[in-house]
Amino acid sequence: MSTTTAPRKIGLIGLGLMGRPMGMNLLKAGHQLTVWNRTPERAKELVAGGAALAKTPHEVAEASEFLLTIVSDPPALESVLWGRDGKNEGALAGLRAGSIYVDSSTISPSLVRRIAAACRERGVRFLDAPVTGGDWGAREGNLVFMIGGDAETLRDAEPILGVMGKKWFYLGPSGAGQIVKLAMNAILALEVGAMAEALALVTRAGLKGEQLVEVMQASMARSGVLDVKSPLMLQGDYRPSFPLRLMHKDLGLALDLANQLGVALPATAAAREVYNYVKGEAKEDLDYSAVMRFWKK
Amino acid sequence: MSTTTAPRKIGLIGLGLMGRPMGMNLLKAGHQLTVWNRTPERAKELVAGGAALAKTPHEVAEASEFLLTIVSDPPALESVLWGRDGKNEGALAGLRAGSIYVDSSTISPSLVRRIAAACRERGVRFLDAPVTGGDWGAREGNLVFMIGGDAETLRDAEPILGVMGKKWFYLGPSGAGQIVKLAMNAILALEVGAMAEALALVTRAGLKGEQLVEVMQASMARSGVLDVKSPLMLQGDYRPSFPLRLMHKDLGLALDLANQLGVALPATAAAREVYNYVKGEAKEDLDYSAVMRFWKK
Amino acid sequence: MSTTTAPRKIGLIGLGLMGRPMGMNLLKAGHQLTVWNRTPERAKELVAGGAALAKTPHEVAEASEFLLTIVSDPPALESVLWGRDGKNEGALAGLRAGSIYVDSSTISPSLVRRIAAACRERGVRFLDAPVTGGDWGAREGNLVFMIGGDAETLRDAEPILGVMGKKWFYLGPSGAGQIVKLAMNAILALEVGAMAEALALVTRAGLKGEQLVEVMQASMARSGVLDVKSPLMLQGDYRPSFPLRLMHKDLGLALDLANQLGVALPATAAAREVYNYVKGEAKEDLDYSAVMRFWKK
Amino acid sequence: MSTTTAPRKIGLIGLGLMGRPMGMNLLKAGHQLTVWNRTPERAKELVAGGAALAKTPHEVAEASEFLLTIVSDPPALESVLWGRDGKNEGALAGLRAGSIYVDSSTISPSLVRRIAAACRERGVRFLDAPVTGGDWGAREGNLVFMIGGDAETLRDAEPILGVMGKKWFYLGPSGAGQIVKLAMNAILALEVGAMAEALALVTRAGLKGEQLVEVMQASMARSGVLDVKSPLMLQGDYRPSFPLRLMHKDLGLALDLANQLGVALPATAAAREVYNYVKGEAKEDLDYSAVMRFWKK
Repeated sequence: MSTTTAPRKIGLIGLGLMGRPMGMNLLKAGHQLTVWNRTPERAKELVAGGAALAKTPHEVAEASEFLLTIVSDPPALESVLWGRDGKNEGALAGLRAGSIYVDSSTISPSLVRRIAAACRERGVRFLDAPVTGGDWGAREGNLVFMIGGDAETLRDAEPILGVMGKKWFYLGPSGAGQIVKLAMNAILALEVGAMAEALALVTRAGLKGEQLVEVMQASMARSGVLDVKSPLMLQGDYRPSFPLRLMHKDLGLALDLANQLGVALPATAAAREVYNYVKGEAKEDLDYSAVMRFWKK
Repeated sequence: MSTTTAPRKIGLIGLGLMGRPMGMNLLKAGHQLTVWNRTPERAKELVAGGAALAKTPHEVAEASEFLLTIVSDPPALESVLWGRDGKNEGALAGLRAGSIYVDSSTISPSLVRRIAAACRERGVRFLDAPVTGGDWGAREGNLVFMIGGDAETLRDAEPILGVMGKKWFYLGPSGAGQIVKLAMNAILALEVGAMAEALALVTRAGLKGEQLVEVMQASMARSGVLDVKSPLMLQGDYRPSFPLRLMHKDLGLALDLANQLGVALPATAAAREVYNYVKGEAKEDLDYSAVMRFWKK
Repeated sequence: MSTTTAPRKIGLIGLGLMGRPMGMNLLKAGHQLTVWNRTPERAKELVAGGAALAKTPHEVAEASEFLLTIVSDPPALESVLWGRDGKNEGALAGLRAGSIYVDSSTISPSLVRRIAAACRERGVRFLDAPVTGGDWGAREGNLVFMIGGDAETLRDAEPILGVMGKKWFYLGPSGAGQIVKLAMNAILALEVGAMAEALALVTRAGLKGEQLVEVMQASMARSGVLDVKSPLMLQGDYRPSFPLRLMHKDLGLALDLANQLGVALPATAAAREVYNYVKGEAKEDLDYSAVMRFWKK
Repeated sequence: MSTTTAPRKIGLIGLGLMGRPMGMNLLKAGHQLTVWNRTPERAKELVAGGAALAKTPHEVAEASEFLLTIVSDPPALESVLWGRDGKNEGALAGLRAGSIYVDSSTISPSLVRRIAAACRERGVRFLDAPVTGGDWGAREGNLVFMIGGDAETLRDAEPILGVMGKKWFYLGPSGAGQIVKLAMNAILALEVGAMAEALALVTRAGLKGEQLVEVMQASMARSGVLDVKSPLMLQGDYRPSFPLRLMHKDLGLALDLANQLGVALPATAAAREVYNYVKGEAKEDLDYSAVMRFWKK
């Protein structure tokens, strides 16, 4: 997965915990970057690094042959793509036929299909490409992309994806990336939720959480996410890496999909309500490992 | 953790998927083994290897300076220790003062405390020492022991534990081993349950389960148990390694403990009912990864 | 709550299990009715009774001083109000300033607020007024309305509501009717779900479901909905009175609202997945009491 | 159901919220009463009314031709029947052949079967006869008995049951009464739990709980238990009528039974964890309607 490629005109919309480091990697790779964010202050570092700051999503699209969006939720993406309040500021209308548009937000497969249809009408080549790997993976250019759409489009997008990640999986037609992403996040939410329940149990029974974590790490239950989150949960350090409000939203999207399909997800549904409880009590922005707060307040 | 030690008189009660290979390793290490099992046919291989087959648990205890029990559930252990129907066949009454008794079954912390009290009365040195690592770990002498009881007793038991496992964790007073074991099994059950829900979702949405497994293995969600179980779940190969009925029982013990303590475990409770559903439908003995059958029948 | 009133020009959109009998009662009370339904065959009885059949929702609105909509879900209502595919067929654009629009569908409070804002812009007086009482209540003119919106508008709407129901509750600003309706349906779904779980338990334990129903009816657990549904559940008679797919949708709306607000609803979430399971297995349209099929297939 | 009958020698063990008023009604009906309670102070009113206070359960049994027990949980009943610490104080050994023993505690069907077997050995005629109706029903002699055991024994017990209740249901062999009782309590817990979730939703959405209660009472969801508990929940008046710790225990017994039988009860399991949460937080004894505290603390 070589990442050397001719410099391209790339648009980036969404400069959050993920978008900023992804943009930095695109700049470092020599690409010409135009960016936009709802709160423009977040663009500072990228502008200092050479990115142009556009006034609207529409401007970003017009300036780009390759557009990448990564925003927090479906409504945010809808307003980026179609504009708000009937104003002509949406990115979709600015995209040229033949250009490539990749969305790395986590959204519903049904919204993906609406976007794909709109892109098809304009001759825009679209991929849904949600990512996993967290802000750390974004900084290190180590993201994993889950791709839905056209395989040929993916081939042409690979040199740019390769700047931000080392792996991508082609999963099927438009929406397939999101389906797998939602399933993955349900697994992660349940692994962390399981650790939280287990910690609540052993500590209330008089033992130390550290003891459970040590045994877990010597066992078949050990997982990447538990290696990272468990020590933070023991310390009660819930500074957001992947914010709880986003994990909570993704669990909602997974359950929406499952309920459209008639697939019962009892444990995911139970876990979602625990995340919901903590979201409802929280005053500040927290990492999703703060699900632990359901028990200790 | 050296495992060379003078040959000892060891009793072993419970010759299931775990007990048999543990016994074989004790024989290989040169120990003198007396065994008992409710269905004596299970003793064949061990007897062929040099073990003596006793007629009652009481006989095993009398013949041993170190007793190990590993049976399927609390009632089985109660009948092994105290005998059934008022007959004098229980192991407890056969144990001599100064001998060591280690139970590696998964039982409730409250039963552990009853056993510990009975042992204390007779001067028997008792450890609760449930294991993790599965039948594979038992064969390889690669089990992990979670230990509750007296630290000095553990020191004296280590040479024998070291024949069967490579790691042990001293977790606190009697019952501490079981508390951590129940918490560990809840995590494992939820990891496998999460994978099952995620597989049900993506396959019902038209993708292949293999695709999700591949992404999972490249992600932070990857775990030891998912590496082992996921491919079997894709194939629908549910031959019992850790039987679903035992995992279901352990979830019940974890929830019992949690409900005694007033610790709510919403996701564990939801998962337990899914395992329960599959247990209720199953005609044959299945591995706990058969939780997948909740969706495909 | 007198129901005699001067004949009015009333529009009715949505001729399902509820809308048809509501329309019949409006005709009987002497009102002039214009109707529309996505599948026009459903209008037969009303047209035979004197109603005019319009070609679009827009035509209905133009012909009416009082518009009533009662359709199956939020997307159906959106297409009725705003039209589909950019065609100018939506009802909203046909409503005159000063006219009254009452929606009795069960939808999200957020969609209510969008509709209320659109009505305010045009000077249309809007109420959200979901109903309870089932198809039987609709036939008997015995519905209960849960009202959100402006109290004065309600006063002016009462003579017409009084043709269809005997009771209405004014609950607060736009959306309040839906909030209470969603909460009510969650209670009903859980009462019926509880009865189903209890029946599954006693029958699997070897008793007859009839015995439980008899005891229930002599107890504090007796409720209106259980009096109606329990005998049908015993017989496995699941002909739709309130269809499972609609109850399942309403549970989804209740959980969406709760998750927006950060209110955890663990039992509602668990019950929703049971309804979801049955929805996923069902081939035909079933009453929501068919939740029972989770256990007996 | 006539209640005049010759005075009988009746033993009563368990003088809690239910047992005391049941005993008062037995005294009023002219029966000769011998009582015992773990904390003897609770016997005051009954002794003042003419009851004899025994020193042990064994003494009560010896003094009685008809024994009634109603204690808080299975361990309490086991110690009443078989004695504690090997002392010969248990009631069972004091019962004479031909006498009738009725247990109105809520316990597991499996404990019922153990008791039934022990009674059969001694020629004692045993019924499981848990009750519903609450402390109010106990005072008014208005309880409902759910009966398992021998129909002829029931016929002979009826004159005495008729002093305490107006209705009884013969449900089948030993254990049948408990099975139905556990199912009934699961329904009640879910009805109250559903009301609590609905109240949490509407109040967090800005409405008043009173509004929901008013609509509920005009709807098919109205039930006996909700009529009684809803106003108390609105006021936050959780003085124990049926204590939460007992409802929580009964949910545990229902789930134990369901999990033995392989019957999944997802909503009951979810509700049990909510009750568990409140139990874990509560410092004082609360009515089970305090499940509401899961949301407002």
